[in-house]
Amino acid sequence: MTSIADAVRWTRHRCITAALLTFALAISSVASAADQPKDSDVDEFMLDNGMEVVIIPDHRAPVVTHMVWYKIGSADEPPGKSGIAHFFEHLMFKGTTNHKPGEFMAKVAEIGGQQNAFTSYDYTAFYETVSPDALETMMSFEADRMRNLILTDDVIKTERDVVLEERRARIETSPEALLSEEINATLYQNQPYRIPVIGWMHEMEQLNRADAVAFYDRYYAPNNAVLVVAGDVDAQTVKALAEKTYGKVARGPDLPPRIRPTEPEQNTKRTVTMRDARVSVPSFQKSWVVPSYHTAKDGEAEALDVLSEILGGGTMSRIYQELVVKTGIASSAGASYSGTYLDDTSFTIYGAPRGEAGIEQVETAIDAEIRKIVRDGVTESELEKAKNRFVRAMIFARDSQSGMANIYGAALTTGSTVKDLAEWPERIKAVTADQVKAVAAKYLNPDRSVAGYLLPPESAEN
Amino acid sequence: MTSIADAVRWTRHRCITAALLTFALAISSVASAADQPKDSDVDEFMLDNGMEVVIIPDHRAPVVTHMVWYKIGSADEPPGKSGIAHFFEHLMFKGTTNHKPGEFMAKVAEIGGQQNAFTSYDYTAFYETVSPDALETMMSFEADRMRNLILTDDVIKTERDVVLEERRARIETSPEALLSEEINATLYQNQPYRIPVIGWMHEMEQLNRADAVAFYDRYYAPNNAVLVVAGDVDAQTVKALAEKTYGKVARGPDLPPRIRPTEPEQNTKRTVTMRDARVSVPSFQKSWVVPSYHTAKDGEAEALDVLSEILGGGTMSRIYQELVVKTGIASSAGASYSGTYLDDTSFTIYGAPRGEAGIEQVETAIDAEIRKIVRDGVTESELEKAKNRFVRAMIFARDSQSGMANIYGAALTTGSTVKDLAEWPERIKAVTADQVKAVAAKYLNPDRSVAGYLLPPESAEN
Repeated sequence: MTSIADAVRWTRHRCITAALLTFALAISSVASAADQPKDSDVDEFMLDNGMEVVIIPDHRAPVVTHMVWYKIGSADEPPGKSGIAHFFEHLMFKGTTNHKPGEFMAKVAEIGGQQNAFTSYDYTAFYETVSPDALETMMSFEADRMRNLILTDDVIKTERDVVLEERRARIETSPEALLSEEINATLYQNQPYRIPVIGWMHEMEQLNRADAVAFYDRYYAPNNAVLVVAGDVDAQTVKALAEKTYGKVARGPDLPPRIRPTEPEQNTKRTVTMRDARVSVPSFQKSWVVPSYHTAKDGEAEALDVLSEILGGGTMSRIYQELVVKTGIASSAGASYSGTYLDDTSFTIYGAPRGEAGIEQVETAIDAEIRKIVRDGVTESELEKAKNRFVRAMIFARDSQSGMANIYGAALTTGSTVKDLAEWPERIKAVTADQVKAVAAKYLNPDRSVAGYLLPPESAEN
Repeated sequence: MTSIADAVRWTRHRCITAALLTFALAISSVASAADQPKDSDVDEFMLDNGMEVVIIPDHRAPVVTHMVWYKIGSADEPPGKSGIAHFFEHLMFKGTTNHKPGEFMAKVAEIGGQQNAFTSYDYTAFYETVSPDALETMMSFEADRMRNLILTDDVIKTERDVVLEERRARIETSPEALLSEEINATLYQNQPYRIPVIGWMHEMEQLNRADAVAFYDRYYAPNNAVLVVAGDVDAQTVKALAEKTYGKVARGPDLPPRIRPTEPEQNTKRTVTMRDARVSVPSFQKSWVVPSYHTAKDGEAEALDVLSEILGGGTMSRIYQELVVKTGIASSAGASYSGTYLDDTSFTIYGAPRGEAGIEQVETAIDAEIRKIVRDGVTESELEKAKNRFVRAMIFARDSQSGMANIYGAALTTGSTVKDLAEWPERIKAVTADQVKAVAAKYLNPDRSVAGYLLPPESAEN
C-alpha cells in the first residue's frame, strides 16, 4: 500500500509466481546510485514487424534484464472470459514446436539466471535476468514462444487446474483479497478494472482451448509487444540480436486502439463490508476513481502523486504523523495513488486502529486530514519536502536494473512514452500547492467515495 | 415497487415512451374475467424462416394486439455500447425503403389504433392495438421495418439527440433514478444487468451509424423474433397472414446462445447512499441477487414469488402489516421479486419512514421480519392465502388482452415456454412452507445484501 515508486506500485495488482520485488532489491545492491542507469541514455527503435525496442544501458555489473511486454492485460479480455490474460501468461511456459515443455526454464536455471512473468490490467510481461552472453539465447526462446506454442486440450486442462488452484490459494482463502475484489467491483461501475486480474472462479473454470488459441493469435505478436533490455549491453548489439530473433517473427493482425469502457459520472457514496472469523484487527480503506497518467490533463496526475505523498506517503506524511505518531489511534495509515494505468485509476487512503481505538475513529481522523487540505491547501515547505521525497524515491526505483526496466515496460504499455519518463521528475517538481489543493477538492469528494471495511464477526466485536 | 404480476413488474425496468400500463388497464375493462383468454387456448407455430408465432384467442371485443418481440436487450449489448438496444427501438420508427418516416405511425393513428415499443435487459418489443381487419397492414409494416430501415448519419444524429434528451429528462433530473442505477451497478458485480437499459450518458453520446447498422443486421431478423397476436382472430388467419408478410423476410445470421457473463460468488455487505437537495422524505431498499425463472432449480423461483408475496406483497403482507398498519413507522414498505429474466435477477425489500421514525428504524423492522421467516418459517394458513392472492393476481393480469400478450412475449424471450406459462399457477400452488423458509434462508443473507439510501442533504437532516 505504499505509493513510492511505480516498480513497487504495480505489484499490488499483478499476479506473479515469484516475488519480483525481492529480486529487484537484491539486484539493486550490486552498484552505487551514482552509476545508475539514466533516462537520458535510454535508446529506442522499432523493428520492421512493428515491435518496439527500448535499451537501457547499465554497466555496473555483467548482468542483463531481458523483458517482453505485451499490450494485453485483463482489462482487454472479452466479456465472460475473465482470467484469460493471466491464464495465457501461464501457457507461455508450455512447449513449442521447437522446444519441449520446461526446456526454456531449464536453460535459464542452467546458466544461473532468473525468470518469471506477471499479468496486470494493462499488460502481460515475461523476463529473464542472465549474463549478457546469454541474451541471444533468451531472445531466441522468447521469440519462439511468441508464435509457436503447442496448445492441446491436455495442456489447457492441466494449466487451467494450476490457475484455479492459484485463485483458491491466493484469493479464496484470504478475506483481504476477497474484500479487495468486491471493492474494485463496486468502485468501477463500468471500467474493466472492476474485474479481478486472476479472473472470477466460475469464468476461469470455463476457459478452453478455443479461447486460448484466439487470444494467442490476436495478441501475441511483435506489433503488440515492447522489448525492454536493460544491462551491460550496447544498443548496436541489442539491435542486431533483436533483428536476428524477433525480427523473424511475422507481424500479427492490426489491432484497433485499446478503447475500453470508461466510467460514467458517479453520484453516490458506497461501502463494502466483509466480516470474517479470520480477521482479528479491523482495517479500512476508502477509494476514489481518479485520472491516470494516460487519462489526466493539466498535470493532474503529477498533482495526485504529490497529494498522495503529502497526505499519506510514508512516515513523514500528514496522516501517518497525526494518526500513528501523534494520537496513536492507528497502527498503520497512509495513502496511495496508482498512476501507471491506461484508463482512469484509483486514489486510496487506508488505516487500521490500534489499542482501544475503533475503526470509525481512524476513518474520521483521516477524513479530517483530507478536509484540511481541501480547505487550507498545503504549505510551500511541505510541498518541497514531499516533492524531494518523491523524486528521491523515483531515483531509488531506477537504481535497480530490473526496476528501471519495469518502469519503462509499464509506462510504454499504458500510453506513456520514453520522453514522458525522462521529463517525469521535472513535471513532479513543477507541481504547485494550488494544484495539490485543486485535485484534492476535485476528486476526494466524500459523497463519491467507496469505503471498504474488513471486520471480525459481529459476535467477536461486541 | 409492487410484485403482483409480471405485466406490471417488468415496467420497472423498461424504457417506454407512453404508459403501456395505463393502456392495459383501459383495455381490460371491456370484458368480464369469465371470458378472458385462457392459457389452454394458446396456439404456437414457427415460420420456415425461424420466426416463432404465438396466438392468444380473445373474442371479447373486436380488437387485436399485435406484438413483435426481439430477443435482444441491453444485456446483449457489446461492451462500451450501452444504450444501443434502446436507441435501436427508437430507430425502428424511422423511414424504410418502402415507407416514409412517420407513415406507419400515421396509419395507426388514422385507423384509431395505438402503437408503441419498449426495451428491457432481455428484449425489445413493438406493438400495435387495432381492429382485426387492420392486422395484415400492421404485419406488413412491421415485417418491412425488420429489414428495410434507412439508417443515414442524419437519422442517427437526430435520434441520438432524442435518446440523450430522454436520459436527461428521466434519469439525470431524478435522484431516485440515479441512485437506482448505482445500486444496480453495485448489486451485479459481473452481469450486464448492472448497466442501465437506457445506457450511460457518455457511451450513448458515442453511438454511431456503424454501431446501429451492425446491431440491426445481427439482431433484427425473423429467427430472432417472436410474434405474439392476441385478440379476436383465429389461428388459421394469423398463420396465413404471418406467412404472407413475415414469411417473406429472409432469415438472419444464426446467433450463438445468449450466454452473458454471470455473477461470481458474493461475499460482502454493501451500501449505496445518495444525498440530494430534492429529497424531503428519505427512503431505502435492500436487494439480493437471486435466481430467475430461467436460472432457478427445484422450484426456487416459485418459492421466491410466494416469499415476496408473504413478506411484502401488498397490504396483507407481513412487512406492510407490521410497519405501516401496526407500528406505523413506515408510510410504505414491501418486497418485490422480478422473476421474468434470462439471467439471475434481484429480490428487493423497501420502505420509507413516517412521522418521527428514522430510516434505521424502518430498516431494522424489515430485517426483523426477514429473520423471523428464516428462523420460524411461515404458517400453512398464510401460505395458502398468499398463494391464492398471487394466483388471483395472475388471473387479473391475464384479463387484459395486452397483459396476456406481454406475459407471453416476456416469457418467451427470457427462456420460458408456452407450456411453462400454462403450468405456472399449478407450480405456485405446489410451493410448500419449507421451500419458502429455505429460499429466505439461502438468499436473504444480510451479509450479502446491497442497501440503497436516498437521503436529504446532511445539513437538512441534522
